[in-house]
Amino acid sequence: MPDANAVQQLAASILERWALLRMLRSKGIAAVQKRIEMEDFVAVDANAPVATETHGERAKCLQRLIRLDLPVPASIALSFATVRSIASGGTMDAGKVLAHFGKAPFVSVRPSSGDPEWGGPEAILNIGMNDARHAEFASLLGPEAADRLYSRFVQTYSVQVAHLDPDAFEAAREADAETLRSMLDAYEAEMDEPFPQDPERQLTDVLKSMARAWEGTSARLLRQARGAPPDAGLGLVVQAMAAGLGPPESGSGAIQFVSGDTGEAQINGRYLGQSQGRDALRSKDAICLARNSRGASLEDLCPEAFAELVSFGATCREGLREEMQIEFALVGGELSVLDAIPVQRQPQAEVRIAVTLANDEVISKDEAVSRIEPGLLTQLMHRQVDPSAQRDVLAIGVAASPGAATGKLVFTSAAAQAAHARGEPAILVRRETSPEDIRGMHAAVGVLTERGGMTSHAAMVARGLGLPGVVGASGIVLNRRDRSLTAEDGRVFKAGDCVTIDGTSGTALAGEVPLLEPSQGEAFRTILDWADEARDIRVRANADTYSEARVALAFEAEGIGLCRTEHMFFEEDRLTLMREMIFAGNGEGRAASLERLVSLQVEDFTQLFDLMECKPVCIRLFDPPLHEFLPKSRDGLRDLADAMNLPLSEVTRHVDALEEFNPMLGLRGVRLGVTIPEIYEAQAEAIFLATIHASRPERPVVPEIMIPLVSASREVELVRSRIEGVAAAVRTRMGVQFDYKLGVMVETPRAALRADEIAPQVAFLSFGTNDLTQMTYGLSRDDAGRFMADYVRLGVFPEDPFHHLDMDGVGELLSLGADRARGSNPDLVLSICGEHGGDQDSIAFCRAAGFDYVSCSPFRVPVARLAAAQIAISERNAT
Amino acid sequence: MPDANAVQQLAASILERWALLRMLRSKGIAAVQKRIEMEDFVAVDANAPVATETHGERAKCLQRLIRLDLPVPASIALSFATVRSIASGGTMDAGKVLAHFGKAPFVSVRPSSGDPEWGGPEAILNIGMNDARHAEFASLLGPEAADRLYSRFVQTYSVQVAHLDPDAFEAAREADAETLRSMLDAYEAEMDEPFPQDPERQLTDVLKSMARAWEGTSARLLRQARGAPPDAGLGLVVQAMAAGLGPPESGSGAIQFVSGDTGEAQINGRYLGQSQGRDALRSKDAICLARNSRGASLEDLCPEAFAELVSFGATCREGLREEMQIEFALVGGELSVLDAIPVQRQPQAEVRIAVTLANDEVISKDEAVSRIEPGLLTQLMHRQVDPSAQRDVLAIGVAASPGAATGKLVFTSAAAQAAHARGEPAILVRRETSPEDIRGMHAAVGVLTERGGMTSHAAMVARGLGLPGVVGASGIVLNRRDRSLTAEDGRVFKAGDCVTIDGTSGTALAGEVPLLEPSQGEAFRTILDWADEARDIRVRANADTYSEARVALAFEAEGIGLCRTEHMFFEEDRLTLMREMIFAGNGEGRAASLERLVSLQVEDFTQLFDLMECKPVCIRLFDPPLHEFLPKSRDGLRDLADAMNLPLSEVTRHVDALEEFNPMLGLRGVRLGVTIPEIYEAQAEAIFLATIHASRPERPVVPEIMIPLVSASREVELVRSRIEGVAAAVRTRMGVQFDYKLGVMVETPRAALRADEIAPQVAFLSFGTNDLTQMTYGLSRDDAGRFMADYVRLGVFPEDPFHHLDMDGVGELLSLGADRARGSNPDLVLSICGEHGGDQDSIAFCRAAGFDYVSCSPFRVPVARLAAAQIAISERNAT
Repeated sequence: MPDANAVQQLAASILERWALLRMLRSKGIAAVQKRIEMEDFVAVDANAPVATETHGERAKCLQRLIRLDLPVPASIALSFATVRSIASGGTMDAGKVLAHFGKAPFVSVRPSSGDPEWGGPEAILNIGMNDARHAEFASLLGPEAADRLYSRFVQTYSVQVAHLDPDAFEAAREADAETLRSMLDAYEAEMDEPFPQDPERQLTDVLKSMARAWEGTSARLLRQARGAPPDAGLGLVVQAMAAGLGPPESGSGAIQFVSGDTGEAQINGRYLGQSQGRDALRSKDAICLARNSRGASLEDLCPEAFAELVSFGATCREGLREEMQIEFALVGGELSVLDAIPVQRQPQAEVRIAVTLANDEVISKDEAVSRIEPGLLTQLMHRQVDPSAQRDVLAIGVAASPGAATGKLVFTSAAAQAAHARGEPAILVRRETSPEDIRGMHAAVGVLTERGGMTSHAAMVARGLGLPGVVGASGIVLNRRDRSLTAEDGRVFKAGDCVTIDGTSGTALAGEVPLLEPSQGEAFRTILDWADEARDIRVRANADTYSEARVALAFEAEGIGLCRTEHMFFEEDRLTLMREMIFAGNGEGRAASLERLVSLQVEDFTQLFDLMECKPVCIRLFDPPLHEFLPKSRDGLRDLADAMNLPLSEVTRHVDALEEFNPMLGLRGVRLGVTIPEIYEAQAEAIFLATIHASRPERPVVPEIMIPLVSASREVELVRSRIEGVAAAVRTRMGVQFDYKLGVMVETPRAALRADEIAPQVAFLSFGTNDLTQMTYGLSRDDAGRFMADYVRLGVFPEDPFHHLDMDGVGELLSLGADRARGSNPDLVLSICGEHGGDQDSIAFCRAAGFDYVSCSPFRVPVARLAAAQIAISERNAT
Repeated sequence: MPDANAVQQLAASILERWALLRMLRSKGIAAVQKRIEMEDFVAVDANAPVATETHGERAKCLQRLIRLDLPVPASIALSFATVRSIASGGTMDAGKVLAHFGKAPFVSVRPSSGDPEWGGPEAILNIGMNDARHAEFASLLGPEAADRLYSRFVQTYSVQVAHLDPDAFEAAREADAETLRSMLDAYEAEMDEPFPQDPERQLTDVLKSMARAWEGTSARLLRQARGAPPDAGLGLVVQAMAAGLGPPESGSGAIQFVSGDTGEAQINGRYLGQSQGRDALRSKDAICLARNSRGASLEDLCPEAFAELVSFGATCREGLREEMQIEFALVGGELSVLDAIPVQRQPQAEVRIAVTLANDEVISKDEAVSRIEPGLLTQLMHRQVDPSAQRDVLAIGVAASPGAATGKLVFTSAAAQAAHARGEPAILVRRETSPEDIRGMHAAVGVLTERGGMTSHAAMVARGLGLPGVVGASGIVLNRRDRSLTAEDGRVFKAGDCVTIDGTSGTALAGEVPLLEPSQGEAFRTILDWADEARDIRVRANADTYSEARVALAFEAEGIGLCRTEHMFFEEDRLTLMREMIFAGNGEGRAASLERLVSLQVEDFTQLFDLMECKPVCIRLFDPPLHEFLPKSRDGLRDLADAMNLPLSEVTRHVDALEEFNPMLGLRGVRLGVTIPEIYEAQAEAIFLATIHASRPERPVVPEIMIPLVSASREVELVRSRIEGVAAAVRTRMGVQFDYKLGVMVETPRAALRADEIAPQVAFLSFGTNDLTQMTYGLSRDDAGRFMADYVRLGVFPEDPFHHLDMDGVGELLSLGADRARGSNPDLVLSICGEHGGDQDSIAFCRAAGFDYVSCSPFRVPVARLAAAQIAISERNAT
């Protein structure tokens, strides 16, 4: 039972707030907020009610350091609410705060937001300096130190708080009495009043200025770009100054115990005598911390303090369970810990630090796994643009395939192949790519397209190949005739010009840019091994070719979830056979072409099965419309007519007849399988023959065959009985037994709705979320690029549904389909393939829906393994 | 509780059947079926267990005639099961049947299937004739009659039962002793046995032969083509012969009391003395029944019999509640009624007969309404090819728009317009039509396309215009260069050649063909008035133009359910404005073009509102992708460049940039509304201004505005707030108040799934089942034509889902969407628009789901009104 008094109090507080709200509405916000009495600040000690959510990360961290008994100067934390009300004009009794710092307060104010990454106003040091303290410090620390302390404050206050011209207030670290005097004069001249002497006035102004800086539009946009929510708050920490100036050894610095680049153990940092704040990190006079052969060190200068810092480091690592950078000050040899933040680190270091902490039993393996943002792994698998490099952006598009590469511009697949043959790296630029460009993409080191989105052909192929790719760079103009592109800013780049594709950020850069090499070291493998221990949903890869399958295996995919066979037909000799097949019409000509295609596919599949050994391989039967295999240009048609030995008019008529208004919704997938059954029969024969070739007595191959684009269960019935017929014929002819599994790719809303009818006929269903998304939204992924950015910006779609699974619409079809399918076939294997397969939210969704595996592009496999593990761990921890 | 004995019996019968089945499987079907003992025949009297479902329509009708005390000769009915087992070799004790017909049986056998329309074997008369009966009849009826009776049987038996060469057995009606002799000899010569004398043997063979004829492949295919189910059964009726030959007055004939062409009351029929069966209907010697000025009549010849027939007619009409044709025989002046079937009738007569029966209170109005197959009305609204005309088919396609028209072939819209200007009817032939062809279609009298299905552009426009149309005639080849078409049989038809389009059957015919004029007379209106009394769901029309709306009104649509505004932009001057708008980009140019379009649309809408008076008009905002308004050909681009005064290269680039891979799934509908908001704002402004112009104080116009292609509720939010803004601005500017209703067209699966989110924002939802079907199946209506026929033939889809609403998939989205929408907005108005709106099953579905109205093309409105009434009546009768 709640206490009666408490209830009454609550009621009273509600009435009070209500009255306030009414007033607020009637009189406007400013009038009311002025009345808010400041009360929410707290002296940070081991037990104070300080939380990251209310006071920010820095305040919380200080409390933790205090709990670890580190020498943290007295600190006061102001909550987000307090700072917000200061920003909107609330009055603040700075005196009450200063009362915590003795009679002559001497303090700093530092920002404390929810996440240090979001930025914030700069710290302001030496508040409390005035003429009287100056005189006092001159006798205590020496006149030089006193001048510096005072002039630093005058400079910061004038520029940051009073917003005076910075030129009038020079760098203060080297200041002497004269500099100080001229600054004080400059202030008075500008402000028509002497420099404020009252510490309370000083603090009030500093707090107000920092609170308002946080609310400024540019600061807000900047932090939102870095992932801050719109209502992110700022806390402030008022801390007693440890001056860092005065008698030896005085100074300041920062220390960390691992490399931010690699994560290896090493003492890193800088120390600068007679300095404050982050001076040591900025000055070329700063020295190293540990003893070394290159010069002076803190360890030489002040071995006790150094030893103490090292022990503080160990304490922090154990206590905060993280590698921290410690900011410290020395005052007359006495050490203060001013702040500590997690060591800034590159992705490679992030993984290594987590693994080392777990190996040292500072954190558990599960926690190490949970700490790595899965997308980070992507950066370890590809070359990346050096974050410190200059970027001369020539095009902005969709970050379609991560990684970076530099090469010479080419505008056709043929040119890319020619460059490849000459050993020159080429960047292929196309309006959009089509299957005819596959060979060009194989030959290129990066790809840039004017059109398309995350799931356009170019994007999908690039990710499959691990090729850096930027698509939908709609600002560029391709000038086909003179083989050049015009950038948004009007610059023209010609074939042969050197450019860099940054597929991680979705930009193309002019010229060569320094790149960082990929690094999947020991730690990368360890974290994924641990992830596999925690994970409880399988991860397969989408791999169409032998080389993609090799990548999938290298990333420890548990099988192939989607092998799109049509890509095998775009190689030169096969394309010719395909075209012959298409032109043959029914009858013997078609059978002959198909027979030759079968023998080629037998090789493809045998290699694939051999490579994958016992791992499952799910082969999707032929899916694209036939016209994708035919040329569209006049030249292409003429070549084809020559090759087929047919009149151009007949070839043109045939090609025209196959053309479709909406190829996505046309004669493809199982519709081809039903209307031209020879194609699927030929493919099934090739799969079965390869099965026999690749099977060993100890490890029989059991291929999975998947029927695409199903919308009615009768389609499955028809194809199934034909495939059964082919299997029986092959068994008889070859005198060998084998098994296979038949399944359906659920890509149409109707297949999901009718999954109960379809499921009893098959062994598995795999949801193809790319097409399912297209049809659920009535939105072509190839055409959506033109307005998707607008749509996301306007919040019409919270995110690109081709990028993040739409849980509400597509997701409902997924769970409804899964439920119905399992209802009529409880043994059914369920999975998702397509671009969403590697996405963390999708994996969580599929796992919750009881799916057996997810399948994603090979380079996403590590990401999916890690993401899946994190979901399992987080669920275990929640229960 | 079931009786213990009954249970035991059932068990025994199961065991027996099981044993039979095993034997059947081990020995083959024939061996077993021979064991089946015939027992299922029944003597037809007033109380015998005879039903259409078990014994066929004829047997049941004979029982009804007996109940009416008409003089029907003794009859035995064999059930479907009996006949089926005879066909598969079961033995039959014909003796038991013949025992019912006295010592010297003399009988006929007639087929009795479930529906006379399905056809069946010909009746066989005079079974029982042999040498002995011949002698007997010679003395009783005269030798001439005896010769004829015997030789008729010998002929029929030899040809139909023994399958001898018909040439050896001449027409027997005029037979004499010599003919008889030669037939008997011919039989003996062929069969190596004398003509069978035993009536039991005769009947056994006749029954077996008729039973087997029913099971023949061609008979089966034929009846299935006429709508019979695959397992349709045949019953047989064995009837005592009323000879029709012998002493005066003997003969046979048929009589009916209405005209089969018009349904008007008139005595029709033929009588022939000394004849049997249907001789009177085949012979030029037959006479009329009623007295007349042109020659002899039965009334003259035998006034008592005639009077009796007339009274029989009245009895039948009352008793069987239908206009019947009575088949009768006279034997020495004595009348027998051999059979009665419903009068064969043309659609016009069908309606008139039903109305007259109801007016005469023979049946109720509800029954009259229920008797008319709704699709029949279509034939009364359009010219039809005379069913008796010779048909020289040149192309077969989809029956896309009913009716028939003859005209000269033209191959371009321009040629159609030119022909129209010259006053010549033109048949427009296109590969497929696009919006640019609209004017050509307006000018043509019929349309034929090589591509497309029931919901292709050509089909939809043709139905809207009431223009006979055949689409997807994939057998023809269009030769654009020399403006000709090659028919499937190789004949070439040139521009100017005369052809006839039969949109009702889906064929194009060479030359001019006699046509029947449409006829919507008094009865047509009456039946629809009665339908409206019974109906409980509203019917609106899809009408895009003033003239379509006029048709809709003429057919008493209760409003416009879908007015597609984009068609208004294809007229010459507007198309230019549209193109200017598209080329203007953002800013002032666009605003100027839109302003001029607004003023044109204000006129359109004002006219429409004026015409429709208080009836609701639902206007769909702009839907198609912009590139539909741009030319595709090189010439068109050049013209456009001239008109826009822009370089060709720029125009081409702009047009190229708007091109889409899958226009159906691209930048159209609300996506244009969101990304180029000026278009919807302009349309809303036009609608509101027209609302003000057309409103009268006593009847304010309340327009309905519908947003197309929604897939997310935020799209509705954005458009809604903009339209609210426009409404407020117009109210202020004009100083006039008005109301409007906003709604959403549910066309994407996602909109149906998220209907609960969308519904609270709007006043109505209308399901656009065309697009919804496309997206649910992942199937473009324009591209499906190529394989839909195969798909339906193979039973992959039971029917074309663009023709008949797919209840399982699309239907589930409809009911799910409706439930969710009503759940969050109980006042919501729900409807269906699109091609399925006029379909009976869809109407039943929508009514069951609680929809408020259906909307269909104007010419379907009468059909929908009637269908809706029938559903309501059938539900009332069921409860």
